[in-house]
Amino acid sequence: MAERLSNIIQMIKPLDEEAMAEARSRQDMLTKPQGSLGRLEELSIKLAGIQGKSIPQIRHKAIITMAGDHGVVDEGVSAYPKEVTAQMVYNFLQGGAGINVIASHIGARVIVVDMGVATELEPSPRLLSTKVASGTRNMAVGPAMTMEQAVMAVETGIEVVSGEVAKGLDIVATGDMGIGNTTASSAICAVMTGKPVAEVTGRGTGIADEQLLHKIQVINRALAVNHPDPEQPLDVLAKVGGFEIGGLAGVMLAAAAHRIPVVIDGFISGAAALIATALSPELKDFLIAGHVSAEAGHRLLLRHLGLHPLLDLGMRLGEGTGAALGIFLAEAAARVLAEMSTFTEAGVSERSELDN
Amino acid sequence: MAERLSNIIQMIKPLDEEAMAEARSRQDMLTKPQGSLGRLEELSIKLAGIQGKSIPQIRHKAIITMAGDHGVVDEGVSAYPKEVTAQMVYNFLQGGAGINVIASHIGARVIVVDMGVATELEPSPRLLSTKVASGTRNMAVGPAMTMEQAVMAVETGIEVVSGEVAKGLDIVATGDMGIGNTTASSAICAVMTGKPVAEVTGRGTGIADEQLLHKIQVINRALAVNHPDPEQPLDVLAKVGGFEIGGLAGVMLAAAAHRIPVVIDGFISGAAALIATALSPELKDFLIAGHVSAEAGHRLLLRHLGLHPLLDLGMRLGEGTGAALGIFLAEAAARVLAEMSTFTEAGVSERSELDN
Repeated sequence: MAERLSNIIQMIKPLDEEAMAEARSRQDMLTKPQGSLGRLEELSIKLAGIQGKSIPQIRHKAIITMAGDHGVVDEGVSAYPKEVTAQMVYNFLQGGAGINVIASHIGARVIVVDMGVATELEPSPRLLSTKVASGTRNMAVGPAMTMEQAVMAVETGIEVVSGEVAKGLDIVATGDMGIGNTTASSAICAVMTGKPVAEVTGRGTGIADEQLLHKIQVINRALAVNHPDPEQPLDVLAKVGGFEIGGLAGVMLAAAAHRIPVVIDGFISGAAALIATALSPELKDFLIAGHVSAEAGHRLLLRHLGLHPLLDLGMRLGEGTGAALGIFLAEAAARVLAEMSTFTEAGVSERSELDN
Repeated sequence: MAERLSNIIQMIKPLDEEAMAEARSRQDMLTKPQGSLGRLEELSIKLAGIQGKSIPQIRHKAIITMAGDHGVVDEGVSAYPKEVTAQMVYNFLQGGAGINVIASHIGARVIVVDMGVATELEPSPRLLSTKVASGTRNMAVGPAMTMEQAVMAVETGIEVVSGEVAKGLDIVATGDMGIGNTTASSAICAVMTGKPVAEVTGRGTGIADEQLLHKIQVINRALAVNHPDPEQPLDVLAKVGGFEIGGLAGVMLAAAAHRIPVVIDGFISGAAALIATALSPELKDFLIAGHVSAEAGHRLLLRHLGLHPLLDLGMRLGEGTGAALGIFLAEAAARVLAEMSTFTEAGVSERSELDN
């Protein structure tokens, strides 16, 4: 494994138990029945453990949306043509996509990263051009990328986070864009969870029954051709992954190394999390599942990761949209802990001793 | 029925189908797979129908938090002493309660209303003093209030909304504060849904098993003593309701009459919605369930109303906290519809005709 990657993995430490105990004790002193803010209370305590502060702070928020193309689209697995990946990147840069609107609503910046779009994109001050290659190769006939490219993708994600930490970063959401990337993600999910391909493959952008059967066959063929080894997450990424998926795995690892909470989005972010948590099991505690997507397999994937999603709104857009909504809830959780008055401060009577 | 109330009920008209059709058609032109924003898309269409605008706007947001005391607290049904109602009202006015923090997070104003707190509250420019009486009477021995008081409570809610509409109001959330008000709400819920008291009665602020059994017995006694008539919602409100519950029913009716979407909070707002929708079945289309609370019976209550909650975070604080989070999602839904680019505007290819 490359040095930069193994260094980051070694930097990931357990949650700060002391900060969590202090946060829990403060929650119980706030003017509300204990536990009555439910998952917002749990979330505030998790944020305390991640940031290592008894009162976690969320001011600088970013959504890192990574784009890449997939050679497997040649097999006819998507409802949209390949060109849409690049077109949507331009849409992100112009501020017209779903993620732009939701990011603006939560007051977060969007970092758009070209991890491997097939076409040359026009340079833009708002685009991070860190292309590993012009799209992956078709995994149905051979490995999607080389092992060097897989490592480069993950290390690029690490580098993107370093740059953002320098600008100020208290929480990060992961997002993706890539026609064909639910196909790669289903392949990763099948390998890493051991579930049958049919159980973890969905309609992506919206394919019909017949094309779904075809997509499942293509994934099964890719697994038979490549034999990805579930014990070697980088092997899985190289053989059936994608550049944006590797990049997102790197984002997660680097954020955890910097004690920054990571709100993961839908199925593609989930596939990246499967790779990343296999590289570092400690990472799991730093992940927050923003939502459960409507894409088949995502619920199962989250259960495998041991994550309970905050939202269940039938969304399946990707881009980081579900994760961005999750950031809003994380911020609400942190603000409640920081800003509510205690019983003593407010002069409110606590619960009666005799429950009467 | 009093004139003001019947006038408001007559003002409630069906959703604007034309605005909804336009909103739906615009959703399908936005740069995302159709339906991929799930419930945010549905919500934007519902908002269009309520506001009667193909692109609904949410700028002025308010949470109306109504407080009242309950004579039935004398029976020992709560974990907290009665004084807490007034103490929490002061906490709202000082900005230290959960609802203050969450309202600030979503950029909404909080309107605190004394509908019937037992003690005299010190006047404050931030408190609407519209006390119907100093707490209800003990429903376990007789009616909680007179029919005149029930009508006055609902009409007070109507009046509060009129005042807020004058200041600008695009969406409103309902909230409550009142030690003992889950007891009144369970009684209302049992009568209006026909379910056994035990099925719709929960732990409120957090009572133990023995006290829960006692609470159920007290409610059953209140129903046996008063015989509330489910066909007469104001009779139910008078006999086993509360002043803040009546006020919230009025808020809902008046908001719908003004074509303002109402995000309802937890179990107490739900009980108010049972009264209000029985007075005007058309109201239901104007209600958005912000969340499902952890209080037993709330899920069943929402199902009875035909509402599907946006959030399920195990919250049970009341005050409008769950509804306020729902306002954030409603605003996200409206902004997506208003601000995302269409395929044509962004130059993004639409779905392939042959799904290939």
